[in-house]
Amino acid sequence: MATILTGGTVVTAADCYQAEVRIEGEKVVAIGQDVFQPGDHHIDVEGCFLFPGGIDPHTHFDLPVGDIKTADDFVSGTRAAAVGGTTTVIDFATQNKGESLATALFNWHEKARGQSYIDYGFHLAISEVTKDVLEEMTTLISKEGVSSVKLYMAYKNILQVDDGALLKVLKLAKKAGLLVCVHCENGDVIDVLVNEAQNKGQIEPRYHPLTRPIAIEREATGRAICLAELADAPLYIVHVSSGAALEMVEQARLKGFPVYAETCPQYLLLDDSYYETSDFSGAKYVLSPPLRPVSNQKALWAGLDSSSVATVGSDHCSFNLKGQKEKGLKDFSQIPNGGPGVENRFGLLYTYGVANGKINLNQFVALTSTNAAKLFGLFPRKGTIAVGSDADLVVWDPTVQEVITAKKQMQQVDYNLYEGFCQQGKARHVFLRGQHLVKEGILQEEGPAGSYLRRTSYCEGRDGSV
Amino acid sequence: MATILTGGTVVTAADCYQAEVRIEGEKVVAIGQDVFQPGDHHIDVEGCFLFPGGIDPHTHFDLPVGDIKTADDFVSGTRAAAVGGTTTVIDFATQNKGESLATALFNWHEKARGQSYIDYGFHLAISEVTKDVLEEMTTLISKEGVSSVKLYMAYKNILQVDDGALLKVLKLAKKAGLLVCVHCENGDVIDVLVNEAQNKGQIEPRYHPLTRPIAIEREATGRAICLAELADAPLYIVHVSSGAALEMVEQARLKGFPVYAETCPQYLLLDDSYYETSDFSGAKYVLSPPLRPVSNQKALWAGLDSSSVATVGSDHCSFNLKGQKEKGLKDFSQIPNGGPGVENRFGLLYTYGVANGKINLNQFVALTSTNAAKLFGLFPRKGTIAVGSDADLVVWDPTVQEVITAKKQMQQVDYNLYEGFCQQGKARHVFLRGQHLVKEGILQEEGPAGSYLRRTSYCEGRDGSV
Amino acid sequence: MATILTGGTVVTAADCYQAEVRIEGEKVVAIGQDVFQPGDHHIDVEGCFLFPGGIDPHTHFDLPVGDIKTADDFVSGTRAAAVGGTTTVIDFATQNKGESLATALFNWHEKARGQSYIDYGFHLAISEVTKDVLEEMTTLISKEGVSSVKLYMAYKNILQVDDGALLKVLKLAKKAGLLVCVHCENGDVIDVLVNEAQNKGQIEPRYHPLTRPIAIEREATGRAICLAELADAPLYIVHVSSGAALEMVEQARLKGFPVYAETCPQYLLLDDSYYETSDFSGAKYVLSPPLRPVSNQKALWAGLDSSSVATVGSDHCSFNLKGQKEKGLKDFSQIPNGGPGVENRFGLLYTYGVANGKINLNQFVALTSTNAAKLFGLFPRKGTIAVGSDADLVVWDPTVQEVITAKKQMQQVDYNLYEGFCQQGKARHVFLRGQHLVKEGILQEEGPAGSYLRRTSYCEGRDGSV
Amino acid sequence: MATILTGGTVVTAADCYQAEVRIEGEKVVAIGQDVFQPGDHHIDVEGCFLFPGGIDPHTHFDLPVGDIKTADDFVSGTRAAAVGGTTTVIDFATQNKGESLATALFNWHEKARGQSYIDYGFHLAISEVTKDVLEEMTTLISKEGVSSVKLYMAYKNILQVDDGALLKVLKLAKKAGLLVCVHCENGDVIDVLVNEAQNKGQIEPRYHPLTRPIAIEREATGRAICLAELADAPLYIVHVSSGAALEMVEQARLKGFPVYAETCPQYLLLDDSYYETSDFSGAKYVLSPPLRPVSNQKALWAGLDSSSVATVGSDHCSFNLKGQKEKGLKDFSQIPNGGPGVENRFGLLYTYGVANGKINLNQFVALTSTNAAKLFGLFPRKGTIAVGSDADLVVWDPTVQEVITAKKQMQQVDYNLYEGFCQQGKARHVFLRGQHLVKEGILQEEGPAGSYLRRTSYCEGRDGSV
Repeated sequence: MATILTGGTVVTAADCYQAEVRIEGEKVVAIGQDVFQPGDHHIDVEGCFLFPGGIDPHTHFDLPVGDIKTADDFVSGTRAAAVGGTTTVIDFATQNKGESLATALFNWHEKARGQSYIDYGFHLAISEVTKDVLEEMTTLISKEGVSSVKLYMAYKNILQVDDGALLKVLKLAKKAGLLVCVHCENGDVIDVLVNEAQNKGQIEPRYHPLTRPIAIEREATGRAICLAELADAPLYIVHVSSGAALEMVEQARLKGFPVYAETCPQYLLLDDSYYETSDFSGAKYVLSPPLRPVSNQKALWAGLDSSSVATVGSDHCSFNLKGQKEKGLKDFSQIPNGGPGVENRFGLLYTYGVANGKINLNQFVALTSTNAAKLFGLFPRKGTIAVGSDADLVVWDPTVQEVITAKKQMQQVDYNLYEGFCQQGKARHVFLRGQHLVKEGILQEEGPAGSYLRRTSYCEGRDGSV
Repeated sequence: MATILTGGTVVTAADCYQAEVRIEGEKVVAIGQDVFQPGDHHIDVEGCFLFPGGIDPHTHFDLPVGDIKTADDFVSGTRAAAVGGTTTVIDFATQNKGESLATALFNWHEKARGQSYIDYGFHLAISEVTKDVLEEMTTLISKEGVSSVKLYMAYKNILQVDDGALLKVLKLAKKAGLLVCVHCENGDVIDVLVNEAQNKGQIEPRYHPLTRPIAIEREATGRAICLAELADAPLYIVHVSSGAALEMVEQARLKGFPVYAETCPQYLLLDDSYYETSDFSGAKYVLSPPLRPVSNQKALWAGLDSSSVATVGSDHCSFNLKGQKEKGLKDFSQIPNGGPGVENRFGLLYTYGVANGKINLNQFVALTSTNAAKLFGLFPRKGTIAVGSDADLVVWDPTVQEVITAKKQMQQVDYNLYEGFCQQGKARHVFLRGQHLVKEGILQEEGPAGSYLRRTSYCEGRDGSV
Repeated sequence: MATILTGGTVVTAADCYQAEVRIEGEKVVAIGQDVFQPGDHHIDVEGCFLFPGGIDPHTHFDLPVGDIKTADDFVSGTRAAAVGGTTTVIDFATQNKGESLATALFNWHEKARGQSYIDYGFHLAISEVTKDVLEEMTTLISKEGVSSVKLYMAYKNILQVDDGALLKVLKLAKKAGLLVCVHCENGDVIDVLVNEAQNKGQIEPRYHPLTRPIAIEREATGRAICLAELADAPLYIVHVSSGAALEMVEQARLKGFPVYAETCPQYLLLDDSYYETSDFSGAKYVLSPPLRPVSNQKALWAGLDSSSVATVGSDHCSFNLKGQKEKGLKDFSQIPNGGPGVENRFGLLYTYGVANGKINLNQFVALTSTNAAKLFGLFPRKGTIAVGSDADLVVWDPTVQEVITAKKQMQQVDYNLYEGFCQQGKARHVFLRGQHLVKEGILQEEGPAGSYLRRTSYCEGRDGSV
Repeated sequence: MATILTGGTVVTAADCYQAEVRIEGEKVVAIGQDVFQPGDHHIDVEGCFLFPGGIDPHTHFDLPVGDIKTADDFVSGTRAAAVGGTTTVIDFATQNKGESLATALFNWHEKARGQSYIDYGFHLAISEVTKDVLEEMTTLISKEGVSSVKLYMAYKNILQVDDGALLKVLKLAKKAGLLVCVHCENGDVIDVLVNEAQNKGQIEPRYHPLTRPIAIEREATGRAICLAELADAPLYIVHVSSGAALEMVEQARLKGFPVYAETCPQYLLLDDSYYETSDFSGAKYVLSPPLRPVSNQKALWAGLDSSSVATVGSDHCSFNLKGQKEKGLKDFSQIPNGGPGVENRFGLLYTYGVANGKINLNQFVALTSTNAAKLFGLFPRKGTIAVGSDADLVVWDPTVQEVITAKKQMQQVDYNLYEGFCQQGKARHVFLRGQHLVKEGILQEEGPAGSYLRRTSYCEGRDGSV
């Protein structure tokens, strides 16, 4: 039996038109003015937009950090994603020192298998670049369906790699068809600044941003780009938070170099005044990179509009204020870094981007779905509404207004970064590979049916560029 | 009776997938894996791409220049366009001094009505900015369906307007929803340099580029952008020929300002060495701006890839070498400026862009069709393959190889700028609003059936940005 | 009889050291630790700096504007200059339309001869670029001792020349060894904006800056540089008022192109808030370019420090508020543009530059004297304290503090732009070619003894660059 | 008894004039038109320039590298310097790992004491940033007269420090009044590239530049500037070799940040084609950074002219081709890095700068002497010709022409980088603190009389900026 959505406006990264969409099994099989056939199940979506299901390329579910774990695991995280309009996440399988990449992947498959309500893939976060690791990288795509890795230029002595290691990975990635994602902050400098702050007794959350200034995000971004150019390898900069760092990306792109920037709703909508609290609640915003002075928001929005920014990820990495963030009550550097967002990313970008007139509907789709699909080897299976693609669809009702609050969220964490923010529009229905996952705003409790996504190379797709 | 195209790969500015396309009347009514209905006419296009019909936003057909006229009129020009894969042109209705805009439009309607094999619209090229002209501009869209005007910063004493006039037009355009196109070269400087050359007896075509250096294209481009920013009006720079001028556009775009650059195949593929001939044949390349040193090609291609360049127009403005270009035998400044290209634009960009790996298929569609449709108020009627859009389709066979030569061209002019260039791929079929205009590469001789296109405002479309 | 200054600190553009200075006749003849000879007249200047006499490269004395004249003529203007520490001015001999350059110079010689208390030269301000004018330019240096001309890109229909004329002058200047000074604002745009303001009834002085935005100073500056590069001629931009315009200069200089920027104390110290008055007193600040938002001050000071700015001129062009500025009571565009400053330039730069730690003593000397001497063909006769140079010396007592006020000024105008500003330091003595012109702060009433300075080419001096 | 130099032209960083110079003891005591006194010794220098003695801020004499030593020690190095017109060097006292700074200085005093023919100071090259080292830095000026330190971002595992260490040193330098000099290349990247080359069997000298690309000089330069800005400390970049790296300096300077660039004659005059030899002789040019493509020369000369470059040092670090450079016969990475130049720096800059018209005489003096004196705390004792300054004078005869060749050099090394280059002009006489060190081109063999120079802080001098 097929399902027909009628009366909606189909939106892709390029188009916007009224048509019926016909779903058979897991796929979109036809789009037309009259594609109804006898026996089809019919859903009226008049007045709604049909968007490709959101793809969040940056989540950390079930991540151990020291002796604690993120508040959201794959169950809660993907349930929240689904109601928010996101049908695919790419999470970071993180290598512990001493582990093989295979082990890291095995661990993450264990966390996700049978737990995820939406489809998922893994990037591989590499913390140690050994000969064996480089060897494993060569078969990551063919063996594991993993076509992207991540390296950190920050978190000294934990995740940080040096420039030599980064260059080696970039060179190998070029050959292996992998896309390298990089966290760009200068960890050596942060280490010095944090020590200085500690020595001065500066322990409150508001010192967090002061120890991670924009200058060193900009510097590390420029450095990563320099290395990528040397390796002639494409580069994906995660969570760009400042106009200065984005400028590095823009300069490289204008020279024709394939550098892709991701930003996040928190950098588009929040600013460093959130750290200025008299109590410990500023800890909620202890993320890295930190929130920036408000002027950076304008630069980032301009980047979305000019396509300097390729994707908007959530960097969902949630810790409860109680019991978890509180580990840093006496030292901000002990606060686990990160915040929730997978549930709100899609709606926030619609509200503050489209409804506010900053970006158009096509850009919205490109930023929340299409570009991530293309960059991370999921296109055209994911990332668009087209014949033959997975029927991952969001029926978005633009007329609904809601207020974001932790009380009502699906995210399993004790706060929301956007508490009190309005959301314009809502995911009325969500389909995952044809399955009616969210119905009239309610998650259908049929259990986790998400599949692992084997991804292809950034380079393999003829149309992989964004 | 409907027509079904089967076996092809549909390409839009965002997507690329295999599907059948169903045409009813003038429109695409369905796209799907199996949309055949009893009685449908069926055309097998296996192995071919289905592209939206090309839109050439920059042609000059039937244009009088002094006592001569361009070699191509609407009949020959649009026939050539059609076989090349272009189903829409936007020509420049040019106001003579003393004329009203209405008169200029009337004249151009006279030239085109019943003569055009493809659909057409008009920009209004304004040579005199009077109170009356400004007044007429306010109703250009509603009365005439004209949503763009053009001004010249060059051609002193003929078409050139001063900065005050340009500013007034930009300010009014902002209110009226018009997009202002500008020819950016400093005409005062050209005048001095041409006089100098004449005084020195420098009469050959090779002095043409020396009197129109890149510096003054860059300068005028920056100046036009400055004025547009003052007026807070969007701006379209026609025929950007140099990396330096493009850089001006890029700087403005990064600041979030809506400036759109058009370039042309001649600037992407030819260079100023073409002027270095011992005979007069360099006159064929006397265009304005002139061909540039070869390094500029790289910058322009990078601009296509980074979306700094929005459109590729032909600037088709053909004069025969014999009898027409020869007017400048004894003084290069008397050579009528311009060259042919409407027939080759689409195929050249496919060949040297897509087939050469410089841009991908989506970018190709955006540059040859979609972006022009969006900027000039034709979208989504034109510029895409989507349900409800005009069935303007090019069935492109990527396996055919041909050599471009004036001998075989449809353009009615005695040379071709790309003589001897290879073309990869060919328009096997072309549909104009469902009409099978080109069949197996042959123009169907059913007479000119092109319609005048009333265009809407750049600003009216929700998704007008590119 | 010689004069010996003892106990002072000699400051040049490079050096700073204690030594005696011996003056014989009009010249410095020795500098040393003990150069006293029997019979020498001795002046103790312990604790003071010995600076080269200031050179103000930008004054307008006795200038007719419409039916009025500037408040200061050569008598009052040069008396004010002298007590302020300036021993040379270069005034603008301005060609009226229809006049020859010779006539313009004749007129200015008439104004200055026997009236000037300090030495003076003339730039030639050209309002009409005819063949005759170009012809006259070729012998300006040899016949008239005039090695610089000035053109205006603003003041439409009065002084403004078009780009063709500017280019011609630059090309000829290159050959003739003349330095071209340009007023960089886009006059066509100003004309439109002023008309708009008038049509809206915006008549108060505060609309003055709104009709001359920074964008068009920046644009015109870039355009002038473009033309100078085409002509391969050095360029001097008068009264740069904004960071954005200065950036144009900086970009050109980094490419190795000889562009020199002048700024003025009013742009370093005042800002556009001065226009925000409830009465007409904002008219005092109606200068062109206008005062700018305060952030520009920082950029200009940085330019002084990085030597992007070559000189600080006063652009002294004084009109009384009563009776003169009041011509614009009902229309700001009728306010005669300009303000006084020749008396304060030197002291203001010392106070807010040196004493405030923004520039050092060597930079102060370079900016107030040496660079102007080098650029305008007066070096090493003027602009330094060196053996063989004119004994134009300022004995500056850095310990004196005064408050600037119109009540006490020598400038013959009814206000002072810097009313209430503190000045640190004071010209205790001033020598003009050995003559003791100012003694203990008092101008010696021995009549105007200034001489006309025949200037040599910018290009002639081996060390003419700054 | 005093010495009088008559008939010469005194040149300083600002001035150029004919005068007599009177030397008494070690000092210049008078400059004038007639300062002869009875009993004075008189030397006629008609037709010659009098320049301040050259200051070479970058030499490595008697430096152990692995199991060898530089070919020149303080005796041969300073003799060569003297005949070339250089009267002061600042050499790098280099800390070995495990050593205190005091020990490093002690070692260098041992090398230099009683061995130097000219005056000398020491920078301290720090290889290990420990708490003790930071502690020692605080008293370097007061105890040791050392006001500058040097850090390396290259030479991994030998001299390279990480970004944290660099930041700590910069912060402490700011407090202690020290100027930090940095070698800017990314050592981690070089390490990877060298290993790659070795693995591919690329052993010849021509692979040296390929393992140290411009991109990583640019990157490290930008990074050092970023850290200096964070520390709010001035920064001196040694041996800038490329236009791209210089651009980083220029951008910082335009923002008003005190970054100073040094370049060297080898980067101004030689290029990477010198590595393209069929034999091992390319090893002579194995320096770091390496010689660059010839286009960089233009950028560097433009930097000299625009004062983006502050000083020209020799980076004299000589190794014989025979026996020393040959250590790398089978592996270019084993070639000791460095080349000679202290003898030629002054004359090369005169010849290819002044005589070729690229810089003027004042710039020449600033670049070879004055700026180094100001930056490194020697001004006004050194670096100028002024009353009270040391009588370090070069009497330069601009009419002499010579050809540079290793056969005739004083440098004690078996080749010369500039073999066969012409030199225009020659040091006819050199005075060191009044001592007639070089007479008619011949070094006077009176033994090493150079003194150690206790230097003051960059920050202490009121006029320390350049």
